[in-house]
Amino acid sequence: MAVISTNPATGVTRELEFEETSEAQVTEVCRSAAEVAGEFSSLPLERRAQMLNNMANELDADATTLVSNADEETALGQARLQGELRRTTFQLRFFADVVTEGTFLNASIDHAGDSPMGPLPDLRRMKIPIGVVGVFGSSNFPFAFSVPGGDTASALAAGCPVVIKAHPAHPTTSAATFQALERGALKSGAPKGTVNLVYGMAAGIALVESNYVDAIGFTGSVAAGRSLWQRANARTTPIPFYGELGSANPLVVTEVAAKERAVEIGTGFAGSMTLGAGQFCTKPGLLFVPTGVAGDELVEAVVETLRSRGTFVMLSEGVANSFHLNTQSMRSSKMVRALVDDEMQERFLTSAHLFEIGADDFSGPDADALHQECFGPAAVVIRYSSKEQLRTAVLSTEKSLTFSVFCGENDSDEEWLLHVGAQRAGRVIVNGFPTGVGVSWSMQHGGPWPSTTSSSATSVGTASIERWLRPVTFQSVPERVLPLALRDTNPLGLLRRVDGVQAFG
Amino acid sequence: MAVISTNPATGVTRELEFEETSEAQVTEVCRSAAEVAGEFSSLPLERRAQMLNNMANELDADATTLVSNADEETALGQARLQGELRRTTFQLRFFADVVTEGTFLNASIDHAGDSPMGPLPDLRRMKIPIGVVGVFGSSNFPFAFSVPGGDTASALAAGCPVVIKAHPAHPTTSAATFQALERGALKSGAPKGTVNLVYGMAAGIALVESNYVDAIGFTGSVAAGRSLWQRANARTTPIPFYGELGSANPLVVTEVAAKERAVEIGTGFAGSMTLGAGQFCTKPGLLFVPTGVAGDELVEAVVETLRSRGTFVMLSEGVANSFHLNTQSMRSSKMVRALVDDEMQERFLTSAHLFEIGADDFSGPDADALHQECFGPAAVVIRYSSKEQLRTAVLSTEKSLTFSVFCGENDSDEEWLLHVGAQRAGRVIVNGFPTGVGVSWSMQHGGPWPSTTSSSATSVGTASIERWLRPVTFQSVPERVLPLALRDTNPLGLLRRVDGVQAFG
Repeated sequence: MAVISTNPATGVTRELEFEETSEAQVTEVCRSAAEVAGEFSSLPLERRAQMLNNMANELDADATTLVSNADEETALGQARLQGELRRTTFQLRFFADVVTEGTFLNASIDHAGDSPMGPLPDLRRMKIPIGVVGVFGSSNFPFAFSVPGGDTASALAAGCPVVIKAHPAHPTTSAATFQALERGALKSGAPKGTVNLVYGMAAGIALVESNYVDAIGFTGSVAAGRSLWQRANARTTPIPFYGELGSANPLVVTEVAAKERAVEIGTGFAGSMTLGAGQFCTKPGLLFVPTGVAGDELVEAVVETLRSRGTFVMLSEGVANSFHLNTQSMRSSKMVRALVDDEMQERFLTSAHLFEIGADDFSGPDADALHQECFGPAAVVIRYSSKEQLRTAVLSTEKSLTFSVFCGENDSDEEWLLHVGAQRAGRVIVNGFPTGVGVSWSMQHGGPWPSTTSSSATSVGTASIERWLRPVTFQSVPERVLPLALRDTNPLGLLRRVDGVQAFG
Repeated sequence: MAVISTNPATGVTRELEFEETSEAQVTEVCRSAAEVAGEFSSLPLERRAQMLNNMANELDADATTLVSNADEETALGQARLQGELRRTTFQLRFFADVVTEGTFLNASIDHAGDSPMGPLPDLRRMKIPIGVVGVFGSSNFPFAFSVPGGDTASALAAGCPVVIKAHPAHPTTSAATFQALERGALKSGAPKGTVNLVYGMAAGIALVESNYVDAIGFTGSVAAGRSLWQRANARTTPIPFYGELGSANPLVVTEVAAKERAVEIGTGFAGSMTLGAGQFCTKPGLLFVPTGVAGDELVEAVVETLRSRGTFVMLSEGVANSFHLNTQSMRSSKMVRALVDDEMQERFLTSAHLFEIGADDFSGPDADALHQECFGPAAVVIRYSSKEQLRTAVLSTEKSLTFSVFCGENDSDEEWLLHVGAQRAGRVIVNGFPTGVGVSWSMQHGGPWPSTTSSSATSVGTASIERWLRPVTFQSVPERVLPLALRDTNPLGLLRRVDGVQAFG
């Protein structure tokens, strides 16, 4: 079956010159990746870093074509896509630095000695690559969370070959970015088979079930993610599946903040919830606003801003249809007031939607549809009239990637809301919107179920490399055959823990 | 139903004065643990450390009674149990040091600034406790992997309340050690409900399924572990399940080593495989020996040593029965030669078993029963006559907790075997036996499936605390409401990563 590319702005589809990958082909690709895993992981770290830099350079060289490809397949616009590509190449280069720095190896040495348990042998622990990593690209970030995105960059940085399943919403972009990665790999002397690309839903399932694959990175919906995660667990030899699924991303405005900055917050919220047509995993989907005049003013600012935004082109017909169904079930609740709700939907086109509900109704048993992520430009305003009502409503939400709090000067609600937020999300934000996820050492993009399958992991930031590593202890292994990272001479100049003390050299 | 205690040395059983915990009681216990989770986690770190030290002191104070209880319920002998209790209290005190040192918090600060992606806000990441941890004690270590064992110590060190499911093989020991833990907790001002104990199989299932429980630590068989792991995954909100299951622990003797030290290695192997009646998760179950005179001599040394050992009292009737069934299916293979195989088995009593098979037969399709862990004093000798035969046979084993290599001077087999071992296990040992797992910074006790459910985790050593932590990023949070670990003033004096650079203070 030929792969099909669709332009969401025009609805025009075309058959590409390549086919979906068959299950047999997926097995073959994964086998060849497994075959070169040892060679790739044993390249010197500088070479691995060079490869990531070369990949970034190759993407930069093709930037004009790539952005144009991606715009045709996503309608996200040139400016946004240029920015996303910059983020993507920055991410690859950042991981090159992480590789060279080497603390991700977590090297630790305990020389033989006595302990209250008796004598202990020489023990040296470090992290090694987990093996072949399967990567599922997302629909909403054709660069940063797709073929050349964070999962690929972090897995390669860890020393793992990757087999990437292209997202059906942007196959041309996937093919073109893959070619850049492959050129970068070959230029650096990485073995052929270090990066691989497959197409089609059947290929995705075969990838999760392949005995040559050792871990999966996934970004997508709760339904698709949970189903693939179950397949990973049902294998004879289960493998870790790191899925970033769905997140409602609550945003609370305190009484004090509403009084101080109603219009500013309302306008900002409308901008954040419609960024990228609301197709962000960090889109704030639940807005907690106090009842009363200040709150009314804030909600009015959201409504006015949304009305001024016109229509949005969604990423794909599938995304547009799901969005239509989700907003339908949101408005069907008797307790809900529709504040912005033009039912206009034409194939890939939609407008923004805003619903309102009282905090008690939201916390009650009949408001399930309002608790789940609605991927697209829709949000629910929850009006509360007491701290207790607010707390109950917030505790009734699903746990999330993010939790945002807008508060004012000397705001007595700040501390308890921060505490509740940290219990319920992977990132807590004060006086800011959750869209915009910086690539940095201190970023956490991952939270409790259902926002991700593993709350101890992140899919953005340097710590995302940890998903693709596995610790091994070398006991009484002679210096000459030890991995470089664990030799007494410390040839890599790593920060290590030696006999319990962290030290360089 | 009353809880029953059995003395495996005499077969005498007695009803204890307490009942198995009902499902409703488990829910109540977990709810109360969840209620105090916030209070416990926010105790100052010194107080948390003091609690772990107090628990160790209370166990020491009761040492004579505890060892006598445990010997009556496990028949492991006073000397071994005294050593195990020393290990257990050392472990609690070691975790007290880990808590005070604070690097487990993984604090990282990126001040607001520019990046190639544009301006980034202030981002600060640290790890927080995951919540209530359910702990399943093991049969074979009534102290070190049971109520006061590594899972409990690491979870409490992480700041998580624990609900422990006592192993049915030693309920009196469980109750007595729990009382010591509870006294230690109360003396340190930890809230009541920080440590909890439940009894019975139904209670164990209820624990895994409780909505008040956030993670599970388990040590036991593949069958029981996989079944509970599936329940954890089938929850509406799945939780991480860290299970240490079964491991065959291959041990390879090279040609050179066999020539140099046949008798020494053979005798040592027999000792390692019968330590604790072979009821260790690290018992070497597969011994790869070259064909020829030196290899014969080595095997003969194993056989003679085993014959001199007499009989073993197994931990429980269940363990003894499984062992009997497993050895039965091992000897039923036509390709197997029984070297030591008295079929004597009386309720809890057994003798050692040693089987031998050719490497090609072992690698073939009909030798499944010989590949799996056989918990108890049994092992399989695999005879190889070429490097290729050895490699194929080793690659046909299940992945393991450990992989041991005995090699000699200038041994050309050392390097490739170490490499293969690191790919297949969490700990690689040169010229040593895998039994004996030191508690240290550099210990890894965990490997690929089926040896554990999560190869990125360890259940022994300081890194075992990582299982019970979850990262959270605080974005643009004012200094005065930041967690202490993330304040610019660094009041805890932690080693942190600040703007990408690791530094103290």
